[in-house]
Amino acid sequence: MIIQSVVNLVSICAEHGIEHAILSPGSRCAPLTLAFVRHTKIHTRTISDERSAAFIALGMAQQLEKPVVLVCTSGSAALNYFPAVAEAYFQQIPLLILTADRPPEWIDQYDGQTIFQENVYRKHVKASFSLPSTNPSDQSLWHADRITNDAINLSQAFPQGPVHINVPLKEPFYPEENEDYRFPEVKLIKVAKSKTSLSPDTKKKLALTLSGFQRIVLVCGQGKPDRKVSSLLDQLAKTKKLMVLTDTISNMQSEETISLHDHWLGQKEFSDPLQPDLILSFGNSIISKSLKLFLRATKAEHWHIQSDGQAKDTFLKLTRIVSSDVDEFLEWLLGSLPENDQVFFDSWKKLENQTRNQLPQVLQESEFGEYPAFHQILSRIPPFSKIHVANSMAVRYLNFLGKRSQEIICNRGTSGIDGSNSTAVGCTFTTKEPITLITGDLAFFYDRNAFWHNYSMPNLRIVLLNNHAGGIFRLIDGPAKQPELEEYFETKQRLTAASISQEFGFEYQQVESREALELALNGFYSPSSKPKLIEVSTDSEMNARILSEVKAKIKALLSESFYS
Amino acid sequence: MIIQSVVNLVSICAEHGIEHAILSPGSRCAPLTLAFVRHTKIHTRTISDERSAAFIALGMAQQLEKPVVLVCTSGSAALNYFPAVAEAYFQQIPLLILTADRPPEWIDQYDGQTIFQENVYRKHVKASFSLPSTNPSDQSLWHADRITNDAINLSQAFPQGPVHINVPLKEPFYPEENEDYRFPEVKLIKVAKSKTSLSPDTKKKLALTLSGFQRIVLVCGQGKPDRKVSSLLDQLAKTKKLMVLTDTISNMQSEETISLHDHWLGQKEFSDPLQPDLILSFGNSIISKSLKLFLRATKAEHWHIQSDGQAKDTFLKLTRIVSSDVDEFLEWLLGSLPENDQVFFDSWKKLENQTRNQLPQVLQESEFGEYPAFHQILSRIPPFSKIHVANSMAVRYLNFLGKRSQEIICNRGTSGIDGSNSTAVGCTFTTKEPITLITGDLAFFYDRNAFWHNYSMPNLRIVLLNNHAGGIFRLIDGPAKQPELEEYFETKQRLTAASISQEFGFEYQQVESREALELALNGFYSPSSKPKLIEVSTDSEMNARILSEVKAKIKALLSESFYS
Repeated sequence: MIIQSVVNLVSICAEHGIEHAILSPGSRCAPLTLAFVRHTKIHTRTISDERSAAFIALGMAQQLEKPVVLVCTSGSAALNYFPAVAEAYFQQIPLLILTADRPPEWIDQYDGQTIFQENVYRKHVKASFSLPSTNPSDQSLWHADRITNDAINLSQAFPQGPVHINVPLKEPFYPEENEDYRFPEVKLIKVAKSKTSLSPDTKKKLALTLSGFQRIVLVCGQGKPDRKVSSLLDQLAKTKKLMVLTDTISNMQSEETISLHDHWLGQKEFSDPLQPDLILSFGNSIISKSLKLFLRATKAEHWHIQSDGQAKDTFLKLTRIVSSDVDEFLEWLLGSLPENDQVFFDSWKKLENQTRNQLPQVLQESEFGEYPAFHQILSRIPPFSKIHVANSMAVRYLNFLGKRSQEIICNRGTSGIDGSNSTAVGCTFTTKEPITLITGDLAFFYDRNAFWHNYSMPNLRIVLLNNHAGGIFRLIDGPAKQPELEEYFETKQRLTAASISQEFGFEYQQVESREALELALNGFYSPSSKPKLIEVSTDSEMNARILSEVKAKIKALLSESFYS
Repeated sequence: MIIQSVVNLVSICAEHGIEHAILSPGSRCAPLTLAFVRHTKIHTRTISDERSAAFIALGMAQQLEKPVVLVCTSGSAALNYFPAVAEAYFQQIPLLILTADRPPEWIDQYDGQTIFQENVYRKHVKASFSLPSTNPSDQSLWHADRITNDAINLSQAFPQGPVHINVPLKEPFYPEENEDYRFPEVKLIKVAKSKTSLSPDTKKKLALTLSGFQRIVLVCGQGKPDRKVSSLLDQLAKTKKLMVLTDTISNMQSEETISLHDHWLGQKEFSDPLQPDLILSFGNSIISKSLKLFLRATKAEHWHIQSDGQAKDTFLKLTRIVSSDVDEFLEWLLGSLPENDQVFFDSWKKLENQTRNQLPQVLQESEFGEYPAFHQILSRIPPFSKIHVANSMAVRYLNFLGKRSQEIICNRGTSGIDGSNSTAVGCTFTTKEPITLITGDLAFFYDRNAFWHNYSMPNLRIVLLNNHAGGIFRLIDGPAKQPELEEYFETKQRLTAASISQEFGFEYQQVESREALELALNGFYSPSSKPKLIEVSTDSEMNARILSEVKAKIKALLSESFYS
């Protein structure tokens, strides 16, 4: 039987401009599957492992900046979506999650494949709906259509995020041969876009307050590249009236911004002249722990700028939420900044410039290991392409290495290692540009099912930094001192990517030296019908030593010059 | 710093007889990790993929019939546990889930690896606790100790199930060098075991009611093997006063019980004389859809026997919950059964016996495919060993094939394909007996991270029925008729287990014929230091044809004899 509310749902998705759905196989979800596959305006793919499916959808929606649909069958399938749903929620990525379900009377009665699906994601979705059973004689179809419209609109409203519709379905749910499968005209509720701006009166008051500050930092949280905002940031930085601080995941790094702060923040000898009296911020999370701790220890005030909703108090100093679109605020700020403390400005700038000058040389002179390898790889990635980077050490190394022209993508919503391959795979489905995934071994093997599907990813390039362990645990003080380090923290594992590469048809090279890596990188970005993978094998102890040596050298070089 | 509440928690676990913990690597969970690893009475293993870790713990707890501890770090790790948590809940398997967390003030503030962990499993755990921060000057340590005791006791109370303790932890959480790491005497709250029995008065009344029935079936739901109950069932069946119906997952099949009902139930020509007037049941879910539908369509009453709690109304006929331990009830029943309708009894028995006599020959004569291969394999599995079987077709084939001496284990709580490898791996950690996992390709590749760890599984034997698709979809009517069958339902996939076997060091053989399978099975159970895997490659279309041919042949043979 054709279930009209489901057919309408798919039409409404298409009319709202949704173009992609990731389906996972199942029987209960058949009416959804058929309707999505048969709609000519929606491109569907099927991915068997729902954990990967959801991260793939996330990787797509992240690029497209509009919702991607997820469809799964009843039971634990919905639970396998959960890690990606949480990531999407905290990273504010729009997803429309459709979980097929048995009708309510069959829940918890030992019927197959049932769990408690209603509201299963709790606070990790913007809202959770249940599609009603419809009856031609009443307004239930209008109700179902309204829910679909509401869910799609909500997923796209600021801050964007995942929205869940549970879809209870009764058998029979396959169309009969004599049934005419058509997509009808549907009821649409569209949202007219708006901007959030400060009133002239508020601006006047803010300018007055602002004039009381002399040492302003502007911290850019995680976000997509945005030319207009970037250009405003550069103009702001050039006034020398505030310091723009940019982690790699902000996608706002430039010649003008501070991006190498991990090399000196938190070190007492440099801290004093860097103290801000006002922190401005926009965007989502920041990656640098030293920056977070530094800002938490200042006596500054903190204003966060965003169009709508609840702001986070990451630095413990939040005193003002400025409800404004970021670009509007920055434009206004450009004309409203007070005079600045030049010692403050120069101190930041000097540390940044010194580090920028010295770091390449220091890495060049280092023994071969993850850190210098990372540096070497970055220099060969096509400019303005996209780099996916896994938690936990990969993104940290990237952050140590300063500004990039490429878009940097990392799952910093929940900071898990569970979906970085899949997120990158999703990204390859949205562009023909090269996508480079840089990952550690734990994240790579954890999410290996990312590659278990029938779709080609000719533009995917993977650099696997394999130290056969969760190397981060050797780099932090606590676990490194425990006898349980290797088995219970690093979790030594012996795998290489050779088997996976063979299984999934990747071009595979394994390297253990600077020279071999250089050779492997030649031609790495030449066109190919298959993904390519370079495995950089290093030793976790050596990596720890290199990291601390580089840190010490940079510190010494900075100390020499900072007070000179 | 040593966190006393955590050290106490581990001591309390040990004093309650918990002997195993499955840890996943992380920093936030370090105090838990260290305490579990350092406690001499608890055996710990570390598994990197939390989805597999949780199913491994479930596979262990299922065998041990006492809680296994799970420990993970903060963030999405807890979400990756969820599929196994739901399975444990519906299958009533005790787990003690410990999720490390940041302190509440850091939740939803863009600090790394935070989600909303409190009560994250909602209705899929028996209870969810939060371990309090403790303060030496008040009773908070007593509170923490009490929570640990309560959680362990609850997980073991009937019906057993998962219990969650969220454990917020503040830094520093690694012990200092001068700290003395010791496990103190702890407060214990132990539960004295009880039995649930019917009162003499209730028994008298029940016997009177029972005497009004003449066609009683006793349906055994999923459960562990239990010699006492099995022997009572045999005695009951031998009275010919009731019919004992046993799916393969009941682990109650014997010469005396009905186990081949899938071959004739739901077929109109056999149904009339089989109608019961009373359904008795105990245990969890049943697998046979034809049995479920048959019972739902009868006019019988249904009484469910269990010691405590809410019973499910799987057959829509539930009128009485009999609060009694099953063995006590069956003993009483043995002396209280009324006379029986002999036509009813003989009809069931005749169908069972005919099928039992004919099926092996019919399968022997069939072309080679999954169904006959399954039959062939079962004949070679060591008696009284353990068989793990995956959803979705594998367990159905097993159910078609009737009684076994082996323990049959299948995740029929949520009936997902997501953790069957891991559950079998968990089982291998509890015994030296051979464990045979029979699985389809989707379930096998889905849960391949089950094998990603450093522990040996010399007693694991895997039979992979690889039809390169979710073959079940070709066997059910709806999807088989849709043009989307291959891509969106079966989800054709090309993998073989050759790469995985190489990667994880399995002895691997691939077969495509009866003869090759027979050869491969020679020596399959000989001792080995490695797991062994036989991949049976078949064609999904051929499998569908064989299944319907066997069904038709059995039906014809039964028809011939049933009314003769």
